Amino acid sequence: MAVPPPKLLERALQQPVVLVLKDGRSIAGRLLGFDEHMNLALDGAEETSNGTTRRFGRMVVRGSNVVAIHAPSAGGKSP
Amino acid sequence: MAVPPPKLLERALQQPVVLVLKDGRSIAGRLLGFDEHMNLALDGAEETSNGTTRRFGRMVVRGSNVVAIHAPSAGGKSP
Amino acid sequence: MAVPPPKLLERALQQPVVLVLKDGRSIAGRLLGFDEHMNLALDGAEETSNGTTRRFGRMVVRGSNVVAIHAPSAGGKSP
Amino acid sequence: MAVPPPKLLERALQQPVVLVLKDGRSIAGRLLGFDEHMNLALDGAEETSNGTTRRFGRMVVRGSNVVAIHAPSAGGKSP
Amino acid sequence: MAVPPPKLLERALQQPVVLVLKDGRSIAGRLLGFDEHMNLALDGAEETSNGTTRRFGRMVVRGSNVVAIHAPSAGGKSP
Amino acid sequence: MAVPPPKLLERALQQPVVLVLKDGRSIAGRLLGFDEHMNLALDGAEETSNGTTRRFGRMVVRGSNVVAIHAPSAGGKSP
Amino acid sequence: MAVPPPKLLERALQQPVVLVLKDGRSIAGRLLGFDEHMNLALDGAEETSNGTTRRFGRMVVRGSNVVAIHAPSAGGKSP
Repeated sequence: MAVPPPKLLERALQQPVVLVLKDGRSIAGRLLGFDEHMNLALDGAEETSNGTTRRFGRMVVRGSNVVAIHAPSAGGKSP
Repeated sequence: MAVPPPKLLERALQQPVVLVLKDGRSIAGRLLGFDEHMNLALDGAEETSNGTTRRFGRMVVRGSNVVAIHAPSAGGKSP
Repeated sequence: MAVPPPKLLERALQQPVVLVLKDGRSIAGRLLGFDEHMNLALDGAEETSNGTTRRFGRMVVRGSNVVAIHAPSAGGKSP
Repeated sequence: MAVPPPKLLERALQQPVVLVLKDGRSIAGRLLGFDEHMNLALDGAEETSNGTTRRFGRMVVRGSNVVAIHAPSAGGKSP
Repeated sequence: MAVPPPKLLERALQQPVVLVLKDGRSIAGRLLGFDEHMNLALDGAEETSNGTTRRFGRMVVRGSNVVAIHAPSAGGKSP
Repeated sequence: MAVPPPKLLERALQQPVVLVLKDGRSIAGRLLGFDEHMNLALDGAEETSNGTTRRFGRMVVRGSNVVAIHAPSAGGKSP
Repeated sequence: MAVPPPKLLERALQQPVVLVLKDGRSIAGRLLGFDEHMNLALDGAEETSNGTTRRFGRMVVRGSNVVAIHAPSAGGKSP
């Protein structure tokens, strides 16, 4: 059975995810929501680079800047 | 319960937000409104860089240039 | 009450605005009109850089090149 | 009264216009027509740079490459 | 009377055209057809640069790569 | 008989695929699903470069970053 | 009679084609199918550069990366 991207993101709701952006940055946070453009809403968002962590709290990331979304804990058993 | 990006932006209306643009600039202001392309209307917009602040007042930012919107005070309790 | 971007632009009609383009240029003029792609029509358009002013008169700017629109005098009282 | 971009272009039909393209080139010609993507059809198109003029005659320019359209003689009286 | 871009391209069917692409290359050929994205089908396509000619025969060029289409012989009398 | 891209991807479901991204990276994984924008959901995703393997687990890759999808084992007999 | 791009691609089905990608690479293969975004499915795909040939087998190429499709053997008689 196929698991289309929106379904995988749905399973990742309220879970920790890591966004990889086009400019190379990675932003970690809890996934609050998303839409069909892959715009994403995060809570507790933070960016760690060179040992420094910047905390952003709630934020919206525009989908057009997103390369990938790592959702290690999305879904219980393997689909 | 999911909080899709438009819902988070709705909660940020009239609140201070910070836009991060593709060219690396950050613009702070009060969020007046937005649309489905993530075009944004701000009041009291200003940009601070290298200790200098430029004040823009009311402005519209085209969504295609937006990387992220920080909305630290969006929504009362944690969703 | 929210003021979506098109509404703010509507208030700026016939008013002086400054467009910031992706290539870094700024163009000032009177806003004649706009559409849903944020294509813009200006009258009395001019660009000032390095102390030199180039006058363009009437022009259309394609929305895809627009980063932001400064509309300092849009709307009477603060929304 | 607002003059949306298509209306300004309509007034510029059969008039001389100058297109500014994303690659920095400027092309002058008589505006034959346009569509909703801002694709443009020109007659008598030519490009002048460094004192040399290249004549293209009839051409279509794809809207996605257009930054701006100068239409100095569009419309009779000031709108 | 306006001649929108698709109409000018229609007049150029079966005629020699020159495509200018975003990467700076020019490709000459006979225009076989086009669609609303300005995707183009050519016959007898060839590219000349530095005195060398590469012959491609039939090809499709995706519209998103096209800057301009020179159609010197499109249409009989001047529109 | 034609095999349109979605059909080939359908045959690759649950199979190992390799994605080539615009930034030059290759990501291998099992294809969980896809949508009409060619957004892709992978399981067991990993990236190997310079002899080092990074393991991502479940991830979504936004279609706009995808150049190609290698699906060596898609479909049984040659179509 | 016009031969729009989809029609030319239809004639190239099951025929050898060469894709030219935005990153300059050329990929040869047998055309299995395509869709309205010019996403392409190939069989027996391979890339030759600097005298080395990499074999990919079945692959999907996302249309947004395609500059041109050479289809020398598309269609029997000249259209």
